[in-house]
Amino acid sequence: MIIVLKPEATESMIEHVMDRLKELGLTPHLSKGQERTIIGVIGDDRILANQPLRAIAGVEDVVPILAPWKLAGREFKKEDTIIDVGGVKIGGRRLAIMAGPCAVEKKELTVGIAQEVKAAGANILRGGAYKPRSSPYAFQGLGNEGLDFLGEAKKLTKLPIVSEILDPRDIELFLEKTDIIQIGARNMQNFELLKEVGAYDKPVLLKRGLSATIKEWLLSAEYIMSRGNKNVMLCERGIRTFESQYRNTLDLAAVPALKALTHLPVIVDPSHATGQWALVAPMAKAAVAAGADGLLIEVHSNPECALCDGEESLKPAKFKDLMKDLRRIAAAVDREIE
Amino acid sequence: MIIVLKPEATESMIEHVMDRLKELGLTPHLSKGQERTIIGVIGDDRILANQPLRAIAGVEDVVPILAPWKLAGREFKKEDTIIDVGGVKIGGRRLAIMAGPCAVEKKELTVGIAQEVKAAGANILRGGAYKPRSSPYAFQGLGNEGLDFLGEAKKLTKLPIVSEILDPRDIELFLEKTDIIQIGARNMQNFELLKEVGAYDKPVLLKRGLSATIKEWLLSAEYIMSRGNKNVMLCERGIRTFESQYRNTLDLAAVPALKALTHLPVIVDPSHATGQWALVAPMAKAAVAAGADGLLIEVHSNPECALCDGEESLKPAKFKDLMKDLRRIAAAVDREIE
Amino acid sequence: MIIVLKPEATESMIEHVMDRLKELGLTPHLSKGQERTIIGVIGDDRILANQPLRAIAGVEDVVPILAPWKLAGREFKKEDTIIDVGGVKIGGRRLAIMAGPCAVEKKELTVGIAQEVKAAGANILRGGAYKPRSSPYAFQGLGNEGLDFLGEAKKLTKLPIVSEILDPRDIELFLEKTDIIQIGARNMQNFELLKEVGAYDKPVLLKRGLSATIKEWLLSAEYIMSRGNKNVMLCERGIRTFESQYRNTLDLAAVPALKALTHLPVIVDPSHATGQWALVAPMAKAAVAAGADGLLIEVHSNPECALCDGEESLKPAKFKDLMKDLRRIAAAVDREIE
Amino acid sequence: MIIVLKPEATESMIEHVMDRLKELGLTPHLSKGQERTIIGVIGDDRILANQPLRAIAGVEDVVPILAPWKLAGREFKKEDTIIDVGGVKIGGRRLAIMAGPCAVEKKELTVGIAQEVKAAGANILRGGAYKPRSSPYAFQGLGNEGLDFLGEAKKLTKLPIVSEILDPRDIELFLEKTDIIQIGARNMQNFELLKEVGAYDKPVLLKRGLSATIKEWLLSAEYIMSRGNKNVMLCERGIRTFESQYRNTLDLAAVPALKALTHLPVIVDPSHATGQWALVAPMAKAAVAAGADGLLIEVHSNPECALCDGEESLKPAKFKDLMKDLRRIAAAVDREIE
Repeated sequence: MIIVLKPEATESMIEHVMDRLKELGLTPHLSKGQERTIIGVIGDDRILANQPLRAIAGVEDVVPILAPWKLAGREFKKEDTIIDVGGVKIGGRRLAIMAGPCAVEKKELTVGIAQEVKAAGANILRGGAYKPRSSPYAFQGLGNEGLDFLGEAKKLTKLPIVSEILDPRDIELFLEKTDIIQIGARNMQNFELLKEVGAYDKPVLLKRGLSATIKEWLLSAEYIMSRGNKNVMLCERGIRTFESQYRNTLDLAAVPALKALTHLPVIVDPSHATGQWALVAPMAKAAVAAGADGLLIEVHSNPECALCDGEESLKPAKFKDLMKDLRRIAAAVDREIE
Repeated sequence: MIIVLKPEATESMIEHVMDRLKELGLTPHLSKGQERTIIGVIGDDRILANQPLRAIAGVEDVVPILAPWKLAGREFKKEDTIIDVGGVKIGGRRLAIMAGPCAVEKKELTVGIAQEVKAAGANILRGGAYKPRSSPYAFQGLGNEGLDFLGEAKKLTKLPIVSEILDPRDIELFLEKTDIIQIGARNMQNFELLKEVGAYDKPVLLKRGLSATIKEWLLSAEYIMSRGNKNVMLCERGIRTFESQYRNTLDLAAVPALKALTHLPVIVDPSHATGQWALVAPMAKAAVAAGADGLLIEVHSNPECALCDGEESLKPAKFKDLMKDLRRIAAAVDREIE
Repeated sequence: MIIVLKPEATESMIEHVMDRLKELGLTPHLSKGQERTIIGVIGDDRILANQPLRAIAGVEDVVPILAPWKLAGREFKKEDTIIDVGGVKIGGRRLAIMAGPCAVEKKELTVGIAQEVKAAGANILRGGAYKPRSSPYAFQGLGNEGLDFLGEAKKLTKLPIVSEILDPRDIELFLEKTDIIQIGARNMQNFELLKEVGAYDKPVLLKRGLSATIKEWLLSAEYIMSRGNKNVMLCERGIRTFESQYRNTLDLAAVPALKALTHLPVIVDPSHATGQWALVAPMAKAAVAAGADGLLIEVHSNPECALCDGEESLKPAKFKDLMKDLRRIAAAVDREIE
Repeated sequence: MIIVLKPEATESMIEHVMDRLKELGLTPHLSKGQERTIIGVIGDDRILANQPLRAIAGVEDVVPILAPWKLAGREFKKEDTIIDVGGVKIGGRRLAIMAGPCAVEKKELTVGIAQEVKAAGANILRGGAYKPRSSPYAFQGLGNEGLDFLGEAKKLTKLPIVSEILDPRDIELFLEKTDIIQIGARNMQNFELLKEVGAYDKPVLLKRGLSATIKEWLLSAEYIMSRGNKNVMLCERGIRTFESQYRNTLDLAAVPALKALTHLPVIVDPSHATGQWALVAPMAKAAVAAGADGLLIEVHSNPECALCDGEESLKPAKFKDLMKDLRRIAAAVDREIE
């Protein structure tokens, strides 16, 4: 950590800062320049994360040097984390293709979509039973019954299930009925929920918050990991920007940036990112080309009657075409698809 | 709601859209123009909120006309909502000044700050017992014990208490030990928590999410209100933008914009918005000039040792000066301060 | 265009709006609903673009229906525009690969880089002679001499040249010495410069402004085209967001979104977008997978001594490797590279 | 400047960085820590602004310590700059109130508005003769004739004139016919235009770019000042964010932040910032409370027929009321209005 002092900082102010740092058990190094004096504190920046050093008289700026996370970082673990979900390995050479309806609606529909996405090459079934909706008047999901419909689809297709949890009080249900617990964008900094899923070893898919920086996102992964659960995968799903042409702005540079910073698998959700089915296919292809370890794609057999996000859902036939195209792209970047 | 059709939409596509709307019990009006055909659906847009009309072939765009909320809107209730919190009226001519430490740390410190802010003219005591922190390694608050320290301060000062809830499982505790339950920015779309506080009539201070639009914010208020709790106040606390000179960008235009859209009281938090104590005073003054119904301000007697957000805390003497200035501004806009 | 009236709009206000519209030569259609009255004006929205209808008493909102551009739109011209630049066709099956140094520095260096990028498969040479720099103290480019160095490189390699213009007074110079005139992000709404390049038929590469919407960007293209120059290509180069992990956020969804809205070629600049050489290759691959018609890539033989943007420049050997990878991706999306 | 090395940086890499710094005439200080090695370069960061140090192998990050501007900074000049515009002093105790139509349309209208704003207490007349419009089909301003109409209004009212320049080739015209040359938001980084107005001592009102950081804005001021023109005032006019409830997000925290960083006067434009006349008054009051040195406000006697931005224009009577309110706020912060 570097502490930059104001040009008008007096000797006694500087001494006071030095004393505070020593009290905290750190070894500060003072460097006086022509225009500015700085203090370098080489050691554990994390001790200082709790300290409001900027509140001390004479301090102009505090610049952290070390990453604020440990367990999630590449420095802590060099090799890629590969998460085994019922035999499907996420994070390796083979891509994880998670597909299914935005919200689970009816049993037959869910089972039917599951069979179609499996036939097209998906290896994980997605489906929302509890739905976080901006409006209290919008369809809120079938809840427990929705998880059961997914269970039926799993029985027939053998596809592991990923579904979103909203309430820490539902943890037992999710441990029993899902294979991957999804933490949605709106809950990326719902720390009580993060702590809850961190207490088990059930794989977690952690979506990026709507306006979360890469740093905050990795710190949320760190919340889960610091509680003991190392099976975390990250999912980029678009960030909020000024552009209103599509629902969110898919930040694909996050993929290679994350692959450098962390050992965790990185998934991309082109459906929620764009909110338009016509943009899903090009963005899915781009994500694979950028190095993503998997995709999360909405598929619905009757999008215009879907109770949630039909605008962004692919019909099964379009999904099948996309899978063909993705196989070509995957091969071009030395990855493979089932 | 207006449905805009694509230039290449065929007659049968148009008919299909009309049929869908009629199935939903609505009366569509078709208007064919030279370049575009549009369908107006004058009625309850809220029925259509669940319908993915954009997923229908031939549809280019869907433009909502009515606001998606009801109870929170000015159209539903013309006069300003005034919330009575232990005798302090929030939303009327007199401003609500909520002041205190970011996090509750020690009993004596908390009580001392409470006495100082009361002496300066604050009428509500703020203090965090459960703290949402980006890093799992940062101070997480004293929890239940912190609420008790606030209770001690209340006993001595008679100031009602506002404190933040993080977990729906803590609701009983907050009903008993606080006067206003705060929903923080990170939980503005934690719908399970919103539903939980909506089930009681305890006043709720709902902070704006980091990248929440005014619309989403009012919909979150609607979540609480639609469950029965009408005592909701909104708190602007800065939004995330590209500017990194301060922690967030305080969006003061939200104050008059909200006063036009909703009858709920609007509070401003200049401390979290700026993250720098030197900017707190000018932004507090600006907020009052803009028409805010109250302020949420961090005060700490020893900011440089505060366990949370010391950078943005005012010392009691500075807070006292600010209160003097605020009284002048309040008078200039026909408001008053205790 | 749809005009939404306020619930409290009186009959005489509505009549006044209808009269204003008729005065403008338009035919308004009035629809009265339970909660709102709306007026549809089916005709040329562009007439209304100049009218401050929101300023009329009783008007709540004005919703445009038609795109505000004409010449740049797919509706005006269905087939893709292909621009011929000295025999290199931009916008067709074969990708345009524009590579070279950020700023032109020395003759030998420029010629050397040009030869290397050509050998690797680039078909256009990029290089900045006039540099827009945030700081007045940063290297401002060699100016006219820089254009001459590019000319030397062209003589030897036969690569057409793209270079950025900053000042309308330099137009003659650019017409003579470049093959494509670049309008940089900072000048996307420098309308005087747009009008100037619009007066000739020299191809123009129009970069997206730092916080320009797709709509504003297409309107800037329309400025050029409405003056007569139809040879416009668009270049996505990252937008400004809250994320500071990379210089800008590359908005790749803009590629398929633009391909649907406009017939103009779409180029992607992964170098300026990310500002980090390690992210250039994955983003270049993603751009091709997303359907871009070409790439703009910085290559420098000694990045650490480059006078501008060395951080984002690839060394020639890395560029050569990237080109090999790009050929595989291009083939996977049925495109080709020289 | 602080250079942070990667954990895997080798001894020879570190030596190479040290050598590069010495070659540049600087004195680097090496500090080796447990997890990271850093190099402090205390001296002139501005020398390094041109150097792509991040491109050197082993370098992880480069952190500037000094502000990149000189002349615009408070460190360079402690006391507030006061600019004299025909007897009106901008930057002192008395506020500069610049009011008038967005675009100059007709002579009588312009003169009439000028007389009304003067009567209400404005001390400078604003009016656009050359208008930067997003669409080529929108009214582009009267040009030279518009400047003449402003001149007529000045003759009668004695109000100095501020008007926007778009093209460096118009500089002579603006030197002759205006008292303050405005650089609009879209041209904040049109460096050729900045250099042009920097060559004279005519006062310049430099608007903040739509997505310009405070740092970039001050660097643009530095462009003008480094050419010799010290009469620069800054104008906050809203930044682009995700919020679409108003045209831009007025960033009032910029006012006190700028007053700390720079000695230049700071003006606020609530009209362009909000784009809605109903928000202009509360934001004008908030700006004065926040410490602004002046306001730029659009006034039009017939907003619904204004050729530009009528939605945000106040009628003269509303402006007069606002001026009364502003006098009260000004008094409450120890400022005054004519």
